Amino acid sequence: MPMEDNEHKSILSSINSPDDLRRLAPGQLPALCTDIRKFLIDSLSTNPGHFASGMGAVELTVALHYVFNTPYDRIVWDVGHQAYPHKLLTGRRKAFAEGNRKFGGISGFPNPSESDYDTFSAGHASNSISAALGMAMASQLKGENPRRNVVAVIGDASISGGLAFEGLNNAANTSNNLLIILNDNEMSIDHNVGSLHSYFAHLNTSQRYNNFRYKAYRTMRKMHLVDDRGKGAIMRFNNSLKSLLTRSQNIFEGLNIRYFGPFDGNDINTIVRVLNDIKDMDGPRILHLRSVKGKGYAPAEANPAAWHAPGCFDPATGKRAEEEAPKDGRMKYQDVFGHTLLGLARSDRRIVAVTAAMASGTSVSIMQHEMPERVFDVGISEGHAVTFAGGLAKDGMKPFVAIYSSFLQRAYDHIIHDVALLNLPVTFCIDRAGIVGEDGPTHHGAFDIAYLRSVPNMTIASPRNEHWLRKLMCTAAADGHGPIAIRYPRGKGRMTDNWECALEPVAIGRGERLRDGHEACVLTIGPVADEAASAIDSLAVRGHSIAHYDMVFAKPLDETIMREVAEKGLPVITVEDGIASGGMGSAVVEWLADHDYTLPVRRVGLPDAFVTQGTPSELAALCGTDAAGIERAIAETLKIHPEE
Amino acid sequence: MPMEDNEHKSILSSINSPDDLRRLAPGQLPALCTDIRKFLIDSLSTNPGHFASGMGAVELTVALHYVFNTPYDRIVWDVGHQAYPHKLLTGRRKAFAEGNRKFGGISGFPNPSESDYDTFSAGHASNSISAALGMAMASQLKGENPRRNVVAVIGDASISGGLAFEGLNNAANTSNNLLIILNDNEMSIDHNVGSLHSYFAHLNTSQRYNNFRYKAYRTMRKMHLVDDRGKGAIMRFNNSLKSLLTRSQNIFEGLNIRYFGPFDGNDINTIVRVLNDIKDMDGPRILHLRSVKGKGYAPAEANPAAWHAPGCFDPATGKRAEEEAPKDGRMKYQDVFGHTLLGLARSDRRIVAVTAAMASGTSVSIMQHEMPERVFDVGISEGHAVTFAGGLAKDGMKPFVAIYSSFLQRAYDHIIHDVALLNLPVTFCIDRAGIVGEDGPTHHGAFDIAYLRSVPNMTIASPRNEHWLRKLMCTAAADGHGPIAIRYPRGKGRMTDNWECALEPVAIGRGERLRDGHEACVLTIGPVADEAASAIDSLAVRGHSIAHYDMVFAKPLDETIMREVAEKGLPVITVEDGIASGGMGSAVVEWLADHDYTLPVRRVGLPDAFVTQGTPSELAALCGTDAAGIERAIAETLKIHPEE
Repeated sequence: MPMEDNEHKSILSSINSPDDLRRLAPGQLPALCTDIRKFLIDSLSTNPGHFASGMGAVELTVALHYVFNTPYDRIVWDVGHQAYPHKLLTGRRKAFAEGNRKFGGISGFPNPSESDYDTFSAGHASNSISAALGMAMASQLKGENPRRNVVAVIGDASISGGLAFEGLNNAANTSNNLLIILNDNEMSIDHNVGSLHSYFAHLNTSQRYNNFRYKAYRTMRKMHLVDDRGKGAIMRFNNSLKSLLTRSQNIFEGLNIRYFGPFDGNDINTIVRVLNDIKDMDGPRILHLRSVKGKGYAPAEANPAAWHAPGCFDPATGKRAEEEAPKDGRMKYQDVFGHTLLGLARSDRRIVAVTAAMASGTSVSIMQHEMPERVFDVGISEGHAVTFAGGLAKDGMKPFVAIYSSFLQRAYDHIIHDVALLNLPVTFCIDRAGIVGEDGPTHHGAFDIAYLRSVPNMTIASPRNEHWLRKLMCTAAADGHGPIAIRYPRGKGRMTDNWECALEPVAIGRGERLRDGHEACVLTIGPVADEAASAIDSLAVRGHSIAHYDMVFAKPLDETIMREVAEKGLPVITVEDGIASGGMGSAVVEWLADHDYTLPVRRVGLPDAFVTQGTPSELAALCGTDAAGIERAIAETLKIHPEE
Repeated sequence: MPMEDNEHKSILSSINSPDDLRRLAPGQLPALCTDIRKFLIDSLSTNPGHFASGMGAVELTVALHYVFNTPYDRIVWDVGHQAYPHKLLTGRRKAFAEGNRKFGGISGFPNPSESDYDTFSAGHASNSISAALGMAMASQLKGENPRRNVVAVIGDASISGGLAFEGLNNAANTSNNLLIILNDNEMSIDHNVGSLHSYFAHLNTSQRYNNFRYKAYRTMRKMHLVDDRGKGAIMRFNNSLKSLLTRSQNIFEGLNIRYFGPFDGNDINTIVRVLNDIKDMDGPRILHLRSVKGKGYAPAEANPAAWHAPGCFDPATGKRAEEEAPKDGRMKYQDVFGHTLLGLARSDRRIVAVTAAMASGTSVSIMQHEMPERVFDVGISEGHAVTFAGGLAKDGMKPFVAIYSSFLQRAYDHIIHDVALLNLPVTFCIDRAGIVGEDGPTHHGAFDIAYLRSVPNMTIASPRNEHWLRKLMCTAAADGHGPIAIRYPRGKGRMTDNWECALEPVAIGRGERLRDGHEACVLTIGPVADEAASAIDSLAVRGHSIAHYDMVFAKPLDETIMREVAEKGLPVITVEDGIASGGMGSAVVEWLADHDYTLPVRRVGLPDAFVTQGTPSELAALCGTDAAGIERAIAETLKIHPEE
C-alpha cells in the first residue's frame, strides 16, 4: 500500500461487494476510481499482469456495478484483460493483490468458477455478444421478474471478429433487451484514421485512391506518425468498421440495433447518467464509449502497447523491469521465428506472412518492417486468416500463418476445408503451443497436435530447440508438400550460443535418436526433450540405460525410428507438452497396434482436464511434464523406486 | 435427351469450353440458357442432385464465363449447389450426365482436382470472399499481366456467416480488384420482409414493436403466408442484413466497397452489360443480383425448398419420386431425433433447441412447429450457435444444438472455450455423422469423435439404433452432467417396428455386450454395429466365436467392458464410421496402454484421407466399414482365410 493511503481514507477499502458500491453517493465515485487506479498501479507493479486495458476501463466498471444490480444483472466481458477493476469491486481485492494469475490464486480473466460476478469465459475474443444473447433469451424464456439486464462489454478489436458479427446479426433479429457496450480504446490509431478518412472520402474509390491511401500510410509510418501496436497495422489501417463508426455510425442502426454514442468512457458521471437513461429501454441497444488505454498513468497513456502487460515496474518512475533486465543471450522462440521468416522471405518472393492481430506477439512484425506488402495482419479473424492463406497458396504463394495455438482453434474447419482438402502448401506457425503459464486454461496451447493429427494431408512438427525451428521452417519453405504445422512454445529457448544456424531443410517425417539405451525408449516431441534428457541423465547416474528419440514429427511418425523402437521391444514412454488424449503418444500407440506390436507404452502429457494458471514450471510439475515427472514416469514403467 | 433436341439444334452441344461460349453472339445467349435448363432438367430427373440453385444461376454462370477470361480469371463459388451450369460449360457435360455425384464420377461441388475452372473448395458456406481475396492478392504480388480478375459468388444466406464478414472487412481494407457477386435468391421471404419492414420502420424500436413484429410473423406463418423453407424462419425473419440490403444498401458502401445493384439475376443481357461495365474498375466491388431459385421450371419456382435436392422426378409433370415412394416403416434418424426432442421439451421447459440454417435438415422443425419460441435457428453461423447455447445453458436452460458433423467443425473453439471449459449442459446433436454419401469429402462427418475426444469435460456417444438415440437424448436431458455429444448418421435407421420406445435415461459411459465369444472381441460404436453383427454371424457360420460389444460411448469408455475385454486377452477389433486416426479405436488403444495391457488391436474406420463421393454402401466398402470389410479385418486378425 502506498503512503497516500494513510493520508486519505481509501473508499475502495470499504467496498467488499457491489452492494457497498451502490450505497455510495454519485459524488464519491470519482474518488473511488482514483483509488482503484492507485491499487492497480501498486499491485501490478510488483505482481505483474495486464495493465493498460484495466486502467482504461475503471469508470466503465464502476458505473456498471453502480447502475446495474449485479450479480442478478449479468455483465459479460469480452476478453478479460480489462476485468481487473471488476475483480477489485467484487470481493476479490485481497485475493487479487496476493494471487492474481498465480498458481492457486485467482485467474487473470473472468472465471465463473471463481465468482458469481464472472458470468462467462473471456479468454478468446468476440464471444460476449453471443453468450450474453443466450443469457438474455434464457431470462426471457423463464419469464424472470424483475427483469434481468444483460450487458455485453466488447472492445473495438473484438467486435471485428466474425463471431461478434454473427452475434450482432442475431441480437438484432430477436426480441431481447441486450445492452452491448462497445469500449473503443484505440484512440491513437483512430484519430489518424478518422481525420485521414474525412479527407479521403472526397476522392474517388479507385485503385489509384487505394494505392495512394496505402502509400500515405507507409509514409506516415516511416515518419513515426502511426504506430503498429501489434494490432494489424497494414490491413487494419483505415479499418472499415471503425471508419464507419467515426463517419456515419450507421452499421448498428442499419442492423436495427439502437445506437448511443460516442461518449467519453473515462467520465464516470456521463457513463452513469447514460446507463441510467438507457438501462430500462426495451430491445437490443449499443452504447459506444471511447476510453483511453492506460488512463490515469502517464507512461501507460503514452505507450499503451508496451503497457498492455508491462511486467514489474517502478510506480514512481514508470521504469519497467524488462527494460533493464540484463541480456542472457537467449532468444524468444517467436523472435527466432520472426528473423528466420524474414531470411526465408528475402530469398523466395512467394513467401508471405498472415497473422490475426498478433504481429508483435508472433514477431511477424520483423518481416513486416522490411516488406510490409507481403505481411497481412487481418485483425481478430483467425478463420479468415486461414482461408485467405488458402487462396494465396492456391494461386502460387507460400503463406506462413502465425497464430497462437489456442486461437488457431477458431480456424479448425478452415484448416480442413480450405487448406488440407486441397493439400495446399500453407505453413501454420503455431506459437504459444503447450503450457503458456499465467494466462491459464483459455490460453494454453493444449489441443493442436490432437486436433490436427486426424486431418488428412497435414504434417505436424515441433522443434526441440531454436536450430530445429529454423530447419523446420526451411523445410516448409521448400516445394513439393502440402500443409505443415510447426508448433513451438511461448518464451525463450535455452540456447545461449548462436541460434542462427544455416538454413537447411530436413526430411519430412524424420526424427533423431539422441541417445541409445537398453531398458526403455523415451520418445519426445518439442523442447520438452530437454526435460526428458535431464530425467534420463538422472537415471543414468543411478545406472539405468534409457534410449531417447526426438520424434520431431507427430505426423507422419518416423517409420525408421518406430521400427527400431518396436523391435527393441522395450517399454516406451512418450512425452509431449500437449494434451495426451489424441496427441503424439496416441499416434505412437496407434502405430504400434497397426503394425502388430504389443509393447507397454506410457504416455506423458497434459491431462484430460483444463489446466489452471501458474508459472510454466509449476504447471509442468503439476502435469508431470517436467524432468522430475518424466523421471517418475520412467521409473514407474521400469518398476524402479524413483529415489532408489 | 428430350425430343426437342432433335427439332432445335442445341447450342449447348457445341460448347466444349468457355472459349466456345465466348465465340457466340450476345443474341445467342438466351437460347443457350434455355438449353442449359433443359439439360439440367433431363439429367437431374434421372440422376438426382441439387436442382433449384443451379437453375437460378444459369444466366449468371453464362455471363461470367462470357465476360471473363476463365480459367485465367478466377470464379470462386460459395457453396457449390449452384455450380452445375458451370460444370456444363467447362467441358464436363458428358461427365455430368453420366456421373454427377457418383462414385468414380465427378463431384457435385466445385473441385480443383477435377478442373482448372474449379478454383476452390465450396462445400462449407461463406469462404469465397476470403479465398478470392487471397487469389487477388497473390496475383497482385506476382504483378501479373494482363490483370487477373477474381470473382467471388456468394449467396444471401452464406454472406451472413461470420467468415464472410471477416472477408468483407478485409477486402475493404486492402488494395485489390476483387469483384463480389451477391446472388440473392430468396425472394419469397424477402418480399414479405421487405414490404413489412417499410411499414414497421415507422414504428418505434421498442419491446412492443419487437413483440408485435414477432407475433405478426407467427400469424402470417399460421396463415401460410410465409414458409420456413428450412432456413431459420424465426430468427432469420426480418433478417437484419437483408432488411439493410432492401432498405438502404449501405452496409457495403459503409465498408468502402462499391455497391452496384440490385439487378435481375435472370436477365442475361443485363448481367453481361453490367459485368462488362464494372469488370475493369479498380478496387473491391460488390454486384447485387436477385435471382429466382428454380427459375425456368414451374414446380421448382413454386416450391424451391422441396426442389433444392428433389431426387428423381418426371420432367413433364414435376412429380417427385419420393412423393410416391411406398412407406417401409423406417424412420430417418433426424426424424427420430426431432420427435424425441419435442417429447422431451414438452416435459421440461428448460429444453430449447438451437440450429444454424438446418431446421428442416435436422428435423428441429418438428419442435419448432409446436413451440417456435423455444427453437432458435440462427442462420449460417455455427460458432454463434454454440456460444449462444453456452449463454443459454449458463443461465439455466438445456440447449440441444443440432448441427451436421462437418459444419460443427466451424464451432470447434466455441465448444472448447464457451461450453466445455465451463462444463455447461449443452447437448450437441451431431447429424450426418460418418459417411454421408454423394455430397462427398466436404460433407462427410469424419472428424467429430477425433476432435471432440481430446476436449475435457466432453461426453461422446453414438446410438446403434433409433431406440438408443432416444435413450441417449433422454440421458442428455437429465440433470447433473456437462456437455454431451450424440452423433448419428444421415438417412434411415433399420427398425421397421416401433421406434418410439419409452424415454429412459442410460448410465453415462456404459456400453453393452451384444454377444460373447472366445476368439476375438469386436468393439463398435454407432449403427455400424449392424455391419459388425453381420460379419460376426458370417464367421459364426464358419465356426468362429467372436464377442461383440457396443461401446455406445467413445468418451468415457465403459471401464467394465474394457476390463472384461482386456482380461480376456483376445485380439481386439474396433469399428467406427469415423476417422480411425484419433477416433474411438484410438481411445481403446490408449486405454489399454494406460492400464498396462498389451493386446493386439486392429482399428477399422475411415482412412487418413479425404473420402470421395459415392453411395454410402460404395464408400463403406471402400473404407472397409461394411460387413465384408469388418469380416475381412476380423479374419486377418485371426489369421483365418476370409473365405475359408
